[in-house]
Amino acid sequence: MNKLLLSLLLTSLSLHSLAQTNARDSVMINKIFDEALVNGKGYQWLEMLTKNIGARLSGSPGADRAVAWCDSLCRSIVPDGVTLQPVTVPYWVRGAKEEVMLLEKGQQPVTLAACALGGSVATPAEGLLAPVVMVHSFEELEKLGEANIKGKIVFYTYEMDQRFINTFGAYADAVGYRWRGPSEAARFGAVASITRSIAINVDDFPHTGSMRYIDSLPKIPCAAISTKAAELLEQRLKENKQFKINMKLNCQTLADKPSHNVIAEIKGNEFPDQIIVIGGHLDAWDNGEGAHDDGAGIMHTVEVLRLFKAIGYQPKRTIRVVSFMNEENGLRGGKAYAQLSEKLEEKHIAAIESDEGGFTPIGFGIDANSSQFNKIKTWQPLLEKFGLWHFTEGGGGADISPLKPQGVPLMNLAVDSQRYFEYHHTANDTFDKVHKRELHLGTAAMAAMVYLISEYGL
Amino acid sequence: MNKLLLSLLLTSLSLHSLAQTNARDSVMINKIFDEALVNGKGYQWLEMLTKNIGARLSGSPGADRAVAWCDSLCRSIVPDGVTLQPVTVPYWVRGAKEEVMLLEKGQQPVTLAACALGGSVATPAEGLLAPVVMVHSFEELEKLGEANIKGKIVFYTYEMDQRFINTFGAYADAVGYRWRGPSEAARFGAVASITRSIAINVDDFPHTGSMRYIDSLPKIPCAAISTKAAELLEQRLKENKQFKINMKLNCQTLADKPSHNVIAEIKGNEFPDQIIVIGGHLDAWDNGEGAHDDGAGIMHTVEVLRLFKAIGYQPKRTIRVVSFMNEENGLRGGKAYAQLSEKLEEKHIAAIESDEGGFTPIGFGIDANSSQFNKIKTWQPLLEKFGLWHFTEGGGGADISPLKPQGVPLMNLAVDSQRYFEYHHTANDTFDKVHKRELHLGTAAMAAMVYLISEYGL
Repeated sequence: MNKLLLSLLLTSLSLHSLAQTNARDSVMINKIFDEALVNGKGYQWLEMLTKNIGARLSGSPGADRAVAWCDSLCRSIVPDGVTLQPVTVPYWVRGAKEEVMLLEKGQQPVTLAACALGGSVATPAEGLLAPVVMVHSFEELEKLGEANIKGKIVFYTYEMDQRFINTFGAYADAVGYRWRGPSEAARFGAVASITRSIAINVDDFPHTGSMRYIDSLPKIPCAAISTKAAELLEQRLKENKQFKINMKLNCQTLADKPSHNVIAEIKGNEFPDQIIVIGGHLDAWDNGEGAHDDGAGIMHTVEVLRLFKAIGYQPKRTIRVVSFMNEENGLRGGKAYAQLSEKLEEKHIAAIESDEGGFTPIGFGIDANSSQFNKIKTWQPLLEKFGLWHFTEGGGGADISPLKPQGVPLMNLAVDSQRYFEYHHTANDTFDKVHKRELHLGTAAMAAMVYLISEYGL
Repeated sequence: MNKLLLSLLLTSLSLHSLAQTNARDSVMINKIFDEALVNGKGYQWLEMLTKNIGARLSGSPGADRAVAWCDSLCRSIVPDGVTLQPVTVPYWVRGAKEEVMLLEKGQQPVTLAACALGGSVATPAEGLLAPVVMVHSFEELEKLGEANIKGKIVFYTYEMDQRFINTFGAYADAVGYRWRGPSEAARFGAVASITRSIAINVDDFPHTGSMRYIDSLPKIPCAAISTKAAELLEQRLKENKQFKINMKLNCQTLADKPSHNVIAEIKGNEFPDQIIVIGGHLDAWDNGEGAHDDGAGIMHTVEVLRLFKAIGYQPKRTIRVVSFMNEENGLRGGKAYAQLSEKLEEKHIAAIESDEGGFTPIGFGIDANSSQFNKIKTWQPLLEKFGLWHFTEGGGGADISPLKPQGVPLMNLAVDSQRYFEYHHTANDTFDKVHKRELHLGTAAMAAMVYLISEYGL
């Protein structure tokens, strides 16, 4: 028997063994989707989080309010199952005045839509005035070298590659110019850096996001400009216009502050020591409402508990929902959670994160061993009628990544990615960009996967 | 060997035989997607159609301009491959004044957001004043009978069922109250009918759409009201408020007018007599811009010709793009096309319609015999990386449905359906609701399927 035929045979056998439980599972998963689509609450909860609280970067009063709100929401669902895990978080504040001006002799100054990258140092109060050098890649930066860069502002203008079908691939491809761009520029004597926003479209919104200074290099101020502003700047440079940029940023890093992960759980009634942890992150950048990033992930996961209660499902294994703090600029919540779990010798059988926005769900990314992966794949036929077809090797998320050394299978809820990088880390990531049914389908997808893992383990 | 194993073996064999051509096909399909995502023109064409022309119901000056524009666009791609097929179309006009007022004694009149259903007769100029009877189903209508209905306005308040994952299922479930509601009400002596808009959400936009009078029954005026207005009206009726509705519609059906299908083709270089026809519809309701319905379908299909030229693909079989006229209120274009094709004894090997909006494509619905269906299914592995996973039995579209008696396999481009029924047939179906990448992915999906049929036949 050849190898392909053997594997097909094994597939057929595993489908057969699955078939014994199909009927009830199918009923339960239908109930989950019906409840989410007809009575889903995530959308109205998201409105509260985005409109009553809004921006909630770690350490900010908004983040404190978000913790209190999430705690109270979770207690309304599982009154005795909620704890607050202390987490010490960084506290970076943008400051009132951000300005990136293009100053051309004899012309009116042009304001470029800009924002400091998260973690940037400030400029001098009067601003930082310097000429600009444009680079399209780190290779080009190196080729230009100190001779061409010293004393200048480096302008990274790298477009997201439209050819990626999944735009997260395009993000991974481009994000280095934000993350390590400032220090790479400083390496050659640049006085500041500007990055074209990591955006899939062309508009006026600058996209912030975190960056990391290399300790051995000077820390230079860094900002993102909107894609429209980047195209304008590129045009001026191509035309060899003589101009300088004046950059004013008065952001600062204050002392660390206490905050919390919000943890809510339903104990399993057969295998309470086996924990399925799911979560999104409660913090969000300071320039928007954090609707898709990651209000949606909070709703996708907290509401799983409500759905299970509503349909009368008592999980066999423990379902734990963690609303993580500080994903955006430090990952302190994710790290603290993994540390505690290791210390307590808890047994996590799966961790699933939602942090790709509240769009139509398509399936799951899966970072697990092959037997776990294959087990999950056998559930695909049950889930395809709900539009869940994408079960790929490789997955996870920032907040759950610290659990990987403990050998926990990691997964992410995968959603339609076409629109995410228009809103991500901008003032445009607002409640009205989230679609009720799309959000609630995501919650149901998460609940269906959790249900199956709860029933069958991994 | 059991039957399941045999079918798995056969599948494995067909995958093997496919594998011989995979490499080149994969390259070509990658080229199609890259070209669509990087250089796609459909989005800017859609802006012209929606913003420069806009509303274009059959017979209207807008429809004439749309034909001229589409003709010119197609000629810019295939200069010698364009013909205009004459089609005589109905010409219904809404009239300037539409008003549905709730009149309660001692209260301010309340205007309900409303629009005439397409094809409705007018009310008397001074309006039609009558009490309202609410029904939730045709069964309830029949139970109420003439005693309760005669002289009244029937208010059909049936909500789209949120439980359908694919909202086209919910549409099919609800649309009867629009399509045959007026005549069913007239059967019991109603003087007019009002339908809750067939909308998946609750907002202020009334959704128009066609209806059909039964010839033997009185033709009564009929309108749709927005879902918000329907909920208000329902509330008043539940509270037993004493009120009447005054309905003013001055729409009318004028004499038929000449119009056209726009037909553009590239002849196949190996099997020119084998025709693959694809299309959307050029007409759109008079209250919006027809961006999703069905400007998107025109772009999805006309641009296939441009994509093939751009990547240097010369099809083996003839690719014909028909921009159909009069899908919305008569289907005269689709019927005329099928008639001509039958008369000329043309051989259509496949017909694919796009009329579900410009959202992220997920695959194809397929109405074909099992050998054709299975052949298409063997292409799924090639297409899944582009998000095309949905290959279901059953499919087609209104415009291509008249080809069915000729035995032509019918298909539809299936897209994410979550948002469509917020815009469908409303003033809200505007250009800004269409997403560039989502639209261009749809075009590429259509082109990839057409490429495979052109290469391998069906």
